[in-house]
Amino acid sequence: MTEISTLGEFGLIDRLTEGLAPFNASTLLGVGDDCAVMNYASDAKNRVVATTDMLMEGIHFDLTYTPLKHLGYKAAMVNLSDVYAMNARPRQLLVSIAVGRKCKVEHLDELYAGLRLACERHGVDLVGGDTTSSLTGVAISITCLGEVEEERIVKRSGAHDTDLICVSGNLGAAYLGLQLLEREKRVLSGQKGGTETVAQPDFSGREYLIERILKPEARRDVIDALQKAEILPTAMIDISDGLSSELMHICKKSGVGCRIYEEKIPVDYQTALAAEEFGMNVYTAALNGGEDYELLFTVPLTAHELVTTLPDVKEIGYVTRAELGQKLVTRDGQEFDLKAQGWNPLAEKSEA
Amino acid sequence: MTEISTLGEFGLIDRLTEGLAPFNASTLLGVGDDCAVMNYASDAKNRVVATTDMLMEGIHFDLTYTPLKHLGYKAAMVNLSDVYAMNARPRQLLVSIAVGRKCKVEHLDELYAGLRLACERHGVDLVGGDTTSSLTGVAISITCLGEVEEERIVKRSGAHDTDLICVSGNLGAAYLGLQLLEREKRVLSGQKGGTETVAQPDFSGREYLIERILKPEARRDVIDALQKAEILPTAMIDISDGLSSELMHICKKSGVGCRIYEEKIPVDYQTALAAEEFGMNVYTAALNGGEDYELLFTVPLTAHELVTTLPDVKEIGYVTRAELGQKLVTRDGQEFDLKAQGWNPLAEKSEA
Repeated sequence: MTEISTLGEFGLIDRLTEGLAPFNASTLLGVGDDCAVMNYASDAKNRVVATTDMLMEGIHFDLTYTPLKHLGYKAAMVNLSDVYAMNARPRQLLVSIAVGRKCKVEHLDELYAGLRLACERHGVDLVGGDTTSSLTGVAISITCLGEVEEERIVKRSGAHDTDLICVSGNLGAAYLGLQLLEREKRVLSGQKGGTETVAQPDFSGREYLIERILKPEARRDVIDALQKAEILPTAMIDISDGLSSELMHICKKSGVGCRIYEEKIPVDYQTALAAEEFGMNVYTAALNGGEDYELLFTVPLTAHELVTTLPDVKEIGYVTRAELGQKLVTRDGQEFDLKAQGWNPLAEKSEA
Repeated sequence: MTEISTLGEFGLIDRLTEGLAPFNASTLLGVGDDCAVMNYASDAKNRVVATTDMLMEGIHFDLTYTPLKHLGYKAAMVNLSDVYAMNARPRQLLVSIAVGRKCKVEHLDELYAGLRLACERHGVDLVGGDTTSSLTGVAISITCLGEVEEERIVKRSGAHDTDLICVSGNLGAAYLGLQLLEREKRVLSGQKGGTETVAQPDFSGREYLIERILKPEARRDVIDALQKAEILPTAMIDISDGLSSELMHICKKSGVGCRIYEEKIPVDYQTALAAEEFGMNVYTAALNGGEDYELLFTVPLTAHELVTTLPDVKEIGYVTRAELGQKLVTRDGQEFDLKAQGWNPLAEKSEA
């Protein structure tokens, strides 16, 4: 293992960013000056989008079970997901990382390997950042820039009465994956200082849940499929805090109500099994679990036929007038008000 | 004092960003969606620049003597300074903040008051960010976007043999200000649990030094003056890590050497007095102190007359061929190699 101080800040940056070649014509100047320089399409229709997210050790991730490569990958995905949620295409990433004394050069190599893999898969250029130290935990802050034609921008505010509510993939898997990891952590920490035969965690049959929490994938494929099918959503948001919370954002911003059906909420078989094991209602996990990084969007009622042709997209309900409220209809036909019980990092320490 | 949990994440964001009205035509959509949306000039000459910086409690600032309003202001300035150093104009700011349990809503109000003041003074729009929690100290990550015409971009790499080396303002003041604050902190902590008459720090006559470390100002005025005088620097960088370190960046990127004169390095009278008090060579502070946020730039020799008309700009030496090295000529005529002893947050805990 190599001490960071042997390379110095600039030697470290050179090492971490070595051989980065731009994927995008808009990237004129990357790492190595006071700013990155971009040349976006000089087209009156072209718009630039920007989003930023910060991940803090102990709040957003636990290094006892999070490989650094996955952490780098996920930190990028969280931001890419926000860009896709505007129906935009990610182009550039700026990465700031603060690490403690225990962190060696090889740890940062791992983290950057994950960041680079995410950038490669999504055709994004790593153009800048800041690498500094932390007295305590690891902090990662990423900013993503993207492009979109003005008429293709999809905000949270465009949903209309009678629109269909759609969601990609399935929900609740990341939340159950986190529960599995936390349980294993408790078991293993109980064995500390114990005998020589320390049990290794056995996640066989649950790999999908573990992958959903540790290595989520931003849904570019859904944005591609929507474009190919010539469907322009009226409103869109990515699901980071849980379906309920995100749907309520769309309703608030659009001035509408909604009605969704529990039985239509997509849930994976592994998620359902794990929920049963934890004695938990799987729909609670799907509605409030968070960290799914799926896309939630609304389309005009007339797009129903087209939506059914989209792979991995489900209709879960429809938009109503605001005065009808934000409703969940359960399997047994009862109606409940949706509640935002999503992950709130600023409230008391959450389970998630 | 109000607990953050009483507002929730979204109530908090609403409060902190209330009444923000855009200064720039390029800001189409600010806080409140998955991304901010910008409409930069649809002009083939227009370029977008981006920079990001992260400030960590205990590393970059000490809350025992840093008012939160100043911290917000400084966090913005650090980024604006990078944009000006490209000869660009800042337009949008994205702000991520992580705070611990002890932090109340009113603390964030203060921090945002500083951010807003910085944005107002520099005509920049606060368009997005992330507010989350930290198990330990405060972390602030800011990204700044700006615009510049392609032919006006100034990189670190354009310096040529015989160019003049210029610096704005004066150097070393922030470093001495930090020494004063650290000394007072030691004195005051020594009095903990002591008598009732705890001495208040007396910085009279040193206010300028304290202001330089706590509330630096990005040099838009210098960029304005250069433009008015029709001087386009060949290379430019902002001085965050110390004159030596930054000059060496320009030399490395431009493939040149340099020769600067100790006696020409601008130093304020208060800086010189404080350096004497601390038994320190004032030029060591000026060369290696860092956090000045002044601009260091090179201009063609033919611009000499024009440069003398610029307020608050001094010529400190000239660019040489690479093989002549990077030299400092002291007052007594001795020549030394410049060394980058600047502030390195990744090395052993620095004094600065």
